[in-house]
Parts: sequence; structure tokens; C-alpha cells
Amino acid sequence: MKTAVILFAHGSRDPLWRKPMEAVAQRLAARSPGTPVRCAYLELTEPDLPTAASELAGLGLRQVSVVPMFLGAGRHVREDLPQIVADLRAAHPGIDWQLQRPVGEDERLLDLLAELATPAIP
Amino acid sequence: MKTAVILFAHGSRDPLWRKPMEAVAQRLAARSPGTPVRCAYLELTEPDLPTAASELAGLGLRQVSVVPMFLGAGRHVREDLPQIVADLRAAHPGIDWQLQRPVGEDERLLDLLAELATPAIP
Repeated sequence: MKTAVILFAHGSRDPLWRKPMEAVAQRLAARSPGTPVRCAYLELTEPDLPTAASELAGLGLRQVSVVPMFLGAGRHVREDLPQIVADLRAAHPGIDWQLQRPVGEDERLLDLLAELATPAIP
Repeated sequence: MKTAVILFAHGSRDPLWRKPMEAVAQRLAARSPGTPVRCAYLELTEPDLPTAASELAGLGLRQVSVVPMFLGAGRHVREDLPQIVADLRAAHPGIDWQLQRPVGEDERLLDLLAELATPAIP
């Protein structure tokens, strides 16, 4: 069963803001060429999550992994996002929507951030 | 010359939001025990950057590295933050304030995010 991925981020008025999300999507596609991947945004940047989800649903996929691209998890991740995913499950019941934990909870990411922030000459 | 680090993030009304930033600060302190490290926030979470900066300035430091803990860089990172750092340079001219690039521009971070988002069974 093929799994698609949606990288879900906050969004911004600034058109450059989305660049890292798109860079991650490109890298994911390079790592895993058979995996459809889309970016989607909570606000201010398009597409939103329902739009990206409908597009993937049109491809006949059975499983979609939604990855919250958030370092800190506040209301957006812990309240807004579960509600949006609940709505997706109701709108597309034939698809298994898998809501992942936010990237900022991953130990490897925390380690790498600490490494990046460590001064070269402390 | 000892360098201190300020991990600068957006902030949130949600008290749990800051947990990853504090986790990164703890890991940095463990990696580099001689490096003073503080978290600071643009809005909604305390302390703000001038407050954290004044605290470090009181320690007699000569160099402070400000690391933007942002995946996407929009107005907050490209306009607000340089202005705050310019104000810090004016307020504390004896300190070398080094504004780093946002973590979301680091190639290793983008690679790791792609790895984390890749489905186990694509």
C-alpha cells in the first residue's frame, strides 16, 4: 500500500518562508521516489491541508501521513491540526490518515539543533 | 573569549510550546558545559531577547551568538530580528553580537527533516 506524505507547516505572508518546506519535500521525493509528497499550510500560504488532501485522494491513495513541521507544538498543532485531520477522515473515509508527532519532538532533531547552535569556539 | 548562545524562537500562548527550545538549550549545555545558553522569544513567551541579552551582558561576556530557531524565515526573522539585534548592539556595544542564519537554512536539518518524514513503508 503506497503512502503519501503531507508536510504541514504554519504558513506566512512572506513568499520566501515556504522555501525550507519545499526543500524538505524535494529531498523526501529524492529519498523515496515512489512516495507522493505535498506541502500544505495552516494559514497565509497555499495550499491548505484540505486542498492538498483532496488532490492526493484523487490519486487513489490508501494511506496519507501528515507530518507537522513545527518545532514548538502549541494550539495549532495540538488543537487545530487534529480537528482538520478529523474532518479529512470524515471527508475521505477510504484513506488511512496518519497524523505524526511534530518534528520538534524528535530526539535526533533536538540533538542536531543543539549541535548547530553550539559555537565553533565556545 | 567565551561565547554565549541565545536560542531565539517565536513564542506562543501555550506553555508547552517552549519545551523543545528548552530541550535544545539543555543539550547544548551538556555538549558545551562552558557555554552560557538562554532561550528568548519574539512574543507571547518570556523572556524576550533584550531581557535575555541584558542578563548575559551582566555576566561580562564578550560575544553572544543569536540562533534563530525558525524553520521558515519570514518577516520575523528577516526584519524584526535584525532590528532587535541592531538595538542590542547599540545598548551593549562592548559585546560582539553574532546573528546566525535560521536553523531552517541548514542542509543537515533539511536532510534530517526529510528522513523523519519518509514513511517507514513507502
